[in-house]
Amino acid sequence: MHLVELIQRALMEDVGAGDITTLSTISADSKSVGCIRAKQELVVCGHEPAEEVFRQVGAVYTPLVAEGTLVPSGTEVARIEGPSRAILTGERLALNFLMKLSGIATHTYRTVDGVSGLRVVDTRKTTPLLRYHERRAVKIGGGHNHRFALYDGILIKDNHIKACGSITIAVQSAKQNAHHLLKIEVEVESLAEMEEAIQAGADVVMLDNMSNEQYREAVSLNQGRVLIEASGNMNRERILEIQGIGIDVVSMGGLIHQARWADLSMKFL
Amino acid sequence: MHLVELIQRALMEDVGAGDITTLSTISADSKSVGCIRAKQELVVCGHEPAEEVFRQVGAVYTPLVAEGTLVPSGTEVARIEGPSRAILTGERLALNFLMKLSGIATHTYRTVDGVSGLRVVDTRKTTPLLRYHERRAVKIGGGHNHRFALYDGILIKDNHIKACGSITIAVQSAKQNAHHLLKIEVEVESLAEMEEAIQAGADVVMLDNMSNEQYREAVSLNQGRVLIEASGNMNRERILEIQGIGIDVVSMGGLIHQARWADLSMKFL
Amino acid sequence: MHLVELIQRALMEDVGAGDITTLSTISADSKSVGCIRAKQELVVCGHEPAEEVFRQVGAVYTPLVAEGTLVPSGTEVARIEGPSRAILTGERLALNFLMKLSGIATHTYRTVDGVSGLRVVDTRKTTPLLRYHERRAVKIGGGHNHRFALYDGILIKDNHIKACGSITIAVQSAKQNAHHLLKIEVEVESLAEMEEAIQAGADVVMLDNMSNEQYREAVSLNQGRVLIEASGNMNRERILEIQGIGIDVVSMGGLIHQARWADLSMKFL
Amino acid sequence: MHLVELIQRALMEDVGAGDITTLSTISADSKSVGCIRAKQELVVCGHEPAEEVFRQVGAVYTPLVAEGTLVPSGTEVARIEGPSRAILTGERLALNFLMKLSGIATHTYRTVDGVSGLRVVDTRKTTPLLRYHERRAVKIGGGHNHRFALYDGILIKDNHIKACGSITIAVQSAKQNAHHLLKIEVEVESLAEMEEAIQAGADVVMLDNMSNEQYREAVSLNQGRVLIEASGNMNRERILEIQGIGIDVVSMGGLIHQARWADLSMKFL
Amino acid sequence: MHLVELIQRALMEDVGAGDITTLSTISADSKSVGCIRAKQELVVCGHEPAEEVFRQVGAVYTPLVAEGTLVPSGTEVARIEGPSRAILTGERLALNFLMKLSGIATHTYRTVDGVSGLRVVDTRKTTPLLRYHERRAVKIGGGHNHRFALYDGILIKDNHIKACGSITIAVQSAKQNAHHLLKIEVEVESLAEMEEAIQAGADVVMLDNMSNEQYREAVSLNQGRVLIEASGNMNRERILEIQGIGIDVVSMGGLIHQARWADLSMKFL
Amino acid sequence: MHLVELIQRALMEDVGAGDITTLSTISADSKSVGCIRAKQELVVCGHEPAEEVFRQVGAVYTPLVAEGTLVPSGTEVARIEGPSRAILTGERLALNFLMKLSGIATHTYRTVDGVSGLRVVDTRKTTPLLRYHERRAVKIGGGHNHRFALYDGILIKDNHIKACGSITIAVQSAKQNAHHLLKIEVEVESLAEMEEAIQAGADVVMLDNMSNEQYREAVSLNQGRVLIEASGNMNRERILEIQGIGIDVVSMGGLIHQARWADLSMKFL
Repeated sequence: MHLVELIQRALMEDVGAGDITTLSTISADSKSVGCIRAKQELVVCGHEPAEEVFRQVGAVYTPLVAEGTLVPSGTEVARIEGPSRAILTGERLALNFLMKLSGIATHTYRTVDGVSGLRVVDTRKTTPLLRYHERRAVKIGGGHNHRFALYDGILIKDNHIKACGSITIAVQSAKQNAHHLLKIEVEVESLAEMEEAIQAGADVVMLDNMSNEQYREAVSLNQGRVLIEASGNMNRERILEIQGIGIDVVSMGGLIHQARWADLSMKFL
Repeated sequence: MHLVELIQRALMEDVGAGDITTLSTISADSKSVGCIRAKQELVVCGHEPAEEVFRQVGAVYTPLVAEGTLVPSGTEVARIEGPSRAILTGERLALNFLMKLSGIATHTYRTVDGVSGLRVVDTRKTTPLLRYHERRAVKIGGGHNHRFALYDGILIKDNHIKACGSITIAVQSAKQNAHHLLKIEVEVESLAEMEEAIQAGADVVMLDNMSNEQYREAVSLNQGRVLIEASGNMNRERILEIQGIGIDVVSMGGLIHQARWADLSMKFL
Repeated sequence: MHLVELIQRALMEDVGAGDITTLSTISADSKSVGCIRAKQELVVCGHEPAEEVFRQVGAVYTPLVAEGTLVPSGTEVARIEGPSRAILTGERLALNFLMKLSGIATHTYRTVDGVSGLRVVDTRKTTPLLRYHERRAVKIGGGHNHRFALYDGILIKDNHIKACGSITIAVQSAKQNAHHLLKIEVEVESLAEMEEAIQAGADVVMLDNMSNEQYREAVSLNQGRVLIEASGNMNRERILEIQGIGIDVVSMGGLIHQARWADLSMKFL
Repeated sequence: MHLVELIQRALMEDVGAGDITTLSTISADSKSVGCIRAKQELVVCGHEPAEEVFRQVGAVYTPLVAEGTLVPSGTEVARIEGPSRAILTGERLALNFLMKLSGIATHTYRTVDGVSGLRVVDTRKTTPLLRYHERRAVKIGGGHNHRFALYDGILIKDNHIKACGSITIAVQSAKQNAHHLLKIEVEVESLAEMEEAIQAGADVVMLDNMSNEQYREAVSLNQGRVLIEASGNMNRERILEIQGIGIDVVSMGGLIHQARWADLSMKFL
Repeated sequence: MHLVELIQRALMEDVGAGDITTLSTISADSKSVGCIRAKQELVVCGHEPAEEVFRQVGAVYTPLVAEGTLVPSGTEVARIEGPSRAILTGERLALNFLMKLSGIATHTYRTVDGVSGLRVVDTRKTTPLLRYHERRAVKIGGGHNHRFALYDGILIKDNHIKACGSITIAVQSAKQNAHHLLKIEVEVESLAEMEEAIQAGADVVMLDNMSNEQYREAVSLNQGRVLIEASGNMNRERILEIQGIGIDVVSMGGLIHQARWADLSMKFL
Repeated sequence: MHLVELIQRALMEDVGAGDITTLSTISADSKSVGCIRAKQELVVCGHEPAEEVFRQVGAVYTPLVAEGTLVPSGTEVARIEGPSRAILTGERLALNFLMKLSGIATHTYRTVDGVSGLRVVDTRKTTPLLRYHERRAVKIGGGHNHRFALYDGILIKDNHIKACGSITIAVQSAKQNAHHLLKIEVEVESLAEMEEAIQAGADVVMLDNMSNEQYREAVSLNQGRVLIEASGNMNRERILEIQGIGIDVVSMGGLIHQARWADLSMKFL
């Protein structure tokens, strides 16, 4: 959904027929300056939707800290100027974006900071309708992205293989039908499956829930023929263990779905 | 947003121009049965959007466990039947709803189970566009809801008071302008402010970030004249301490924004 | 519906594939000034949609009389400047809003002017999709508003009571389920029902189609415990009779649905 | 707007996040039968939107009286069966359509009943977004329709002539630019203008605000060359006077905008 | 569909979640100037959608040649300035409009150039959703338009006559039901049918797939009573033969659906 | 755009406020059977949108010939049953899809029939909003598809290289930023550029407007390291010449934009 429409709909959800508290207590010509501060250490993310929220209600949002910056608790991250009514009506929605997205960026940062030699990527386990923003928060926090959706990457998973008959059949069908700019990835549960996938023409294999020892064997068996992605039960500790083995990509849905909102609030000066 | 449109848009986000993996590997006439299982102890929530996802892609989702039920890890919570393509294309989106909403219901359950004598309610700190579903998950988990949005409840907060001049002015303006079926709530930071709000005609006061001792004094000062809501830094332990004091409502945004997704997955039989 | 979208859709309805008369008779570079005049005594209302209509077609609408002003026939209420094509294409739609809304404001003004001691409010008997504007016209004309819709007020009516079993059950269910900022209103048809509603915890009672004598008895019975709303067969004469009795609110759908359009027209200077 | 979307949006306006009264007082499995009765003599109109309202909320609306029928007060015009919740939630919106549209049909009927020898038609003075339904109510009541909108008929009015230079220029431009299935109508304010319009090639002339005597002269001057439409300050009495003169069409915006809602209500059996 | 929405949706189709090539290779602050040139002789058409495409992506499109101009191969027809990313992302869509619409304008020009004494018009055989633009291209190329759609012209075709019973019945029904600014056109397959249509009150007849000799007989039989439209198997040669006969209108769907895209391309300076 | 919405909007374009011819000449209870026949040899394509058109207007469309079949002129390809009004109202739009899409399928078939050893693919030169259907028609006609849009494939073209600095920089940036399931394609204009692209890590090269001799040299230079796509001035003759050389893919926008509509018509039985 386009940002303008996303914010229109989100304002419709929160404001609807009118912000009755503000309309009944604040005069139309009152002006204020609002200050948004971090209430914990966090990586700032979410200026884009926050700015659009205030633009739509008629106030001006000025970022004071660049996205991706790790700031201490108490830092002023943005300032809003305009009619008091506008600021009060947009406050909660803007904060909801900033808190959610800074939460993901902060969690990603804490997970991948200092990791080298492999990409830590997100998955399609994202909040419906907010994937673009959540994936962007992962990048802001220092992570990478996997395919965006079902339409821009081929990933043959266990259920596909079951319904299709075999890894070989699945890979060959995919190569025949997909356009020629797409690689073929296959989720495998053993080294034998991995070898079958490679023989069938896969470009990438995803090793599902394996031990570090199995990862080492897989790297050894592969001999650099395909990219290797590791997935399942990942966290920072595990990634630090894995990073020297030769795995190319670690995917981790929890970058997004295990992140909690970071804490920010707005006060009128 | 209406459920049908929500799911249409969410499918558009994830499927877009087509699920290229499934279309290129699975034949149109293949049928499958998918089994969705809990992979941790959780309170089940999310059948409604999951069912709509599969309806729109052309499969049939059958809930096997009622929403609100606490189930052990391994429990089959739903079954899906239909074309393999449809099931594979809808799987991720349906699971994203089930995991997110069961996560909120489970977190709420763990927070409020056994609490009595007061309502634990959510706040407007919800994921943009998903408020209806997140609030519903709070109820499924045993919590209550606060106002839905800015349009169905009057809550005068610190910034309103600052922009308006005083609690008294704010409350009187609200009473004059709001329709006659709405109560007036005021956020207060001291007992003096609480008394001013009551004198001005407030129906409910929200005590912001006070100690248990201050709650006791507030209850004593109130003498039952208005409802009292406590807010700020709440968790299960704090609620258990508060529940005997005479507070009517505890509000806690974290029921929603500190919940992590619960774990569920789907396998073809 | 957001004003911008409302006007887009209304222009689509009236203009569609093109204003073929204007496009085929007026050159693109012709400029005009249009003058909108009242053709009867009326209370002006509707500048907001009229201005948006002309903004969307590319002309500039300047209000000359503030909304809420009672003007004599012949008064110029607004002026439009811009391309002749734009003005001609937007004319009818802008006038349709001005005529309809000034009609409601004028009818409300004639109904409530000089009434004191109670609120005269509208109801949900409004034109589908135009409720916001019609309710606003009621306020512009000097009336008040009832709840906006089914989502921002609890009003238990005769059919609810029939389906639910009793007033007592209905009120208790509502108190249990509704959020804590909503009052509970009950429509009653006798003083016995009124007493039952109050005992059950209602905050407001609506007396349906009662005589002035019954209103007096109700006020006496109530002893100020709840707000009293009177409804049914209301007009200015009746309201003037009632205003001293102690009724708090009179609701009257006819403020909107018995209003006829006021007469205004536009001429090029 | 398509009927399905119109009703979706109108329900969104009235129901939004939920019919909180109904949801909190009526159980999901309660069933009811609702009976809609006329509370005055009226011409029935509006089954189509009423039926769609109840279809969307999940109840079944059965018309008992055909549209266009004049019924006495007390007549049952439709019956609704289904879940009590659905009926209560849809009731107001369905009645709003029935009351508004039956009001127009009844007003039209009272205006045109027994008129012969000419068409009484509506104008573009209609409620924004509801033109289709209002025009249909005019036909149901026994009237005819004028062009639907700016895109399906050429009507050159005074402001066009002023901006364009002359009737002759306007008519010739229109004939050159319009497609060959459209007639050209010109609004004239004198017999001299009428003759100029006919000479320039007009197919229809609209006589604006003339006396019956002027109408007679116009008919005599015309000699059947073009259709004649009379407009301005029309009502039943005036139409009855005019009907013998030789006027082809009388246009009358008041068929729609001077109609008041007819009275209908719903009760559970 | 409104131009703004058309281009939003078309950009959504082509850009969706992002122009991954451009985003990953071009820096956000790179600026470029693009030059659009004709790669064949063509009649320029399509500035309006092209300009809107670049406006929406954030670049500025400046037409250098007026629409309707016949230009030789190599002519620069427009220039684009702005961020390189914006220009690259909008390039294809803008060119798709320019190529398609210039193709229609060029094909129309080659068909009607020098034809006099009759109108060559398009039909409803247009690309779904793009009728407005395709019809406009016909006018730009020197053609005329038929009715826009089913709602702004009465054209009784063979299947209508079959379903209705006879030409006479169809014409009389249409005259009774249609509003008084619409002419009635009838498709006829013989001179006998033509006479029947005229007798019944048709204003225009369409002669379907007749020979030039039959056209002459039809003109002779008509004696100027109605307009005559010829249709079926038309091309420039045929039109040149017909133009002296007395036919008023030739309709030709192929102006649009047999046109091939003209060739244009964009290069960065 | 989803098929249901596409057809709703396309019907809105063609039908709008109503099919006035049909409504005024055909009775609501008339039923007909329509027969759609090819009026030339063609490859059938377009059943899906045609079926949806008739579904939405209330008739039943039954395909009689499978898509992709080459049929002689006169073949009945589908039959429609239902109310005469519905069939007449949907006829043109359904035929517009069938004629356009069968035109593309037929043109593709005539271009690629008998070609082997390489893929002939379409490009992004498609009609705005109809890409899905046009690409599908290419497949139905025997061709293959290139990437769908800017979001599902990396293709670095001459303008990207110019804005970015060099092929090497562009390819390396793309590899760094794109997700790991995407290949990198580069458009090159010489063998030196081809070698630079391969060295930089490209997976596919597009040879722009080269001679057959240059294609042979490119294949020889490549030694199978990357896929080779040839583009520019392609037609059946050229493809037949190229097919033995070792080119993997030929892309050809003209499969879609140089196709003319095939001829089909509907008659009532």
